[in-house]
Amino acid sequence: MTVTIIGIGLIGGSMAIDLKKRHFADKIIAVDSNKLHSETAKSIGLVDDISNLEEGIRKADLIIIATPADVTLNILPDILNKINNQTVTDVSSTKYGICQLVKNHPKRKNFVAAHPMAGTEYSGPWAAISHLYDGKSVIICNHKESSEKALQETEDLYGALNMQIIHMEAKAHDIHAAYVSHISHISSFALALTVLEKEKNEKHIFNMAGGGFRSTVRLAKSSSEMWTPIFEQNYLNIVDVIDTYIEKLQLFKNGIINKNKNDIENLIKSANKIKRII
Amino acid sequence: MTVTIIGIGLIGGSMAIDLKKRHFADKIIAVDSNKLHSETAKSIGLVDDISNLEEGIRKADLIIIATPADVTLNILPDILNKINNQTVTDVSSTKYGICQLVKNHPKRKNFVAAHPMAGTEYSGPWAAISHLYDGKSVIICNHKESSEKALQETEDLYGALNMQIIHMEAKAHDIHAAYVSHISHISSFALALTVLEKEKNEKHIFNMAGGGFRSTVRLAKSSSEMWTPIFEQNYLNIVDVIDTYIEKLQLFKNGIINKNKNDIENLIKSANKIKRII
Repeated sequence: MTVTIIGIGLIGGSMAIDLKKRHFADKIIAVDSNKLHSETAKSIGLVDDISNLEEGIRKADLIIIATPADVTLNILPDILNKINNQTVTDVSSTKYGICQLVKNHPKRKNFVAAHPMAGTEYSGPWAAISHLYDGKSVIICNHKESSEKALQETEDLYGALNMQIIHMEAKAHDIHAAYVSHISHISSFALALTVLEKEKNEKHIFNMAGGGFRSTVRLAKSSSEMWTPIFEQNYLNIVDVIDTYIEKLQLFKNGIINKNKNDIENLIKSANKIKRII
Repeated sequence: MTVTIIGIGLIGGSMAIDLKKRHFADKIIAVDSNKLHSETAKSIGLVDDISNLEEGIRKADLIIIATPADVTLNILPDILNKINNQTVTDVSSTKYGICQLVKNHPKRKNFVAAHPMAGTEYSGPWAAISHLYDGKSVIICNHKESSEKALQETEDLYGALNMQIIHMEAKAHDIHAAYVSHISHISSFALALTVLEKEKNEKHIFNMAGGGFRSTVRLAKSSSEMWTPIFEQNYLNIVDVIDTYIEKLQLFKNGIINKNKNDIENLIKSANKIKRII
């Protein structure tokens, strides 16, 4: 099977490695408006060929759109216009807007809205790694709007990536994604901004940062190109979660200011319940 | 050399493993008011002997207090009263209060105030691991108030643990620790509380949590016993950092509500500067 990946960065590139290695794809074609990305992908062996959008679509059996969420919204209708009967799937972290956008497209059934929940704080084809998806979950949204063939091909694709497939309505997906993914990025960006503002001595940050700070601030390295459109597209859910998050921080602040040991203990013990789950 | 470790949990226990393995200590004695902890430490081979406080002090060449910060404040003066000429060092994450407390103690010179900046989200002797300290930093505070002998012995101890030694005034330490350690824990506890409140379906948290959420929420597993006293003792600095943190979150919220793409991009790009440091 020939797989065309539109947008060959961390996400698309990591798929390319394992889809080829695991013989899901015989040939992988990269389409990327950023020539540096597509040429790097070719030169480091992530993909077999580079082509333009039209040719990439024409030659593909399966098309993966792995661009930032705003680009995906922009190009998906055009891609659906151009396909014959191939399957098209996307990877973006917000699903409601995109499902609404193509709801009535004549080729809607060829499209499968998916969100593989994996990544790192790095980006670009040079960040692509094998095994990125192994054991993680992929959310497939509004699967009844896809044809059986398109759904099966997409599920086979994620099967080859060793992902657990979960079906969910797009609206519910965006709410859950705000809780378990989007807020983590905001908390981490805000933490980096706080530390960079308060701690003018960068040497102190470097020397004193233990594993705890490193792990909470890791996501602050994530790219604006990827995350700005996600925050824009999922803004209602995200603002709601930020509000709750600020409330919880204020509970800590009040407990600490009032030297209310019991309150602080109870907050920490309630937070500890996350242990049962993760 | 015989080393007595008072409080044999993650921190003391991890020291015990490497101090013995690396021949810094010939014998390690555990003192712990929690019998389960001291007996576990003995039975899993972390320490050679268990004893009470008096005997532990008498037999020791070097005494490490590795208890939660409130316990350390409670027991340090008494320990200094009981020593002959041994060195006593502590590990607590707040240093100003403790340095103030023993400032005029006749045995002040035998004490070295230290903060090895390493840990995990787990606690108890069963959480102790080898190599916990390798390559991390230890902050030694107000070192001029310690005798040369006590300082040398403590620096040798941390040398055996492969730590980078940094000298700092206790007051400055507590400010920096609020930025690069304490706020990370609060951000993580608050994140856990937020997600547990918003996401009633625990299965969704488990299934949808990618590496990003896992890493930002990891510290929320940390124990109340350890962290409540740290927040109490460093409350002024911590409240100041929480305020800045909430301001930064509000900047994100405003950018997102107002759909101000430029603002969001600029915030993320500023946060990305943490890459240069960590």
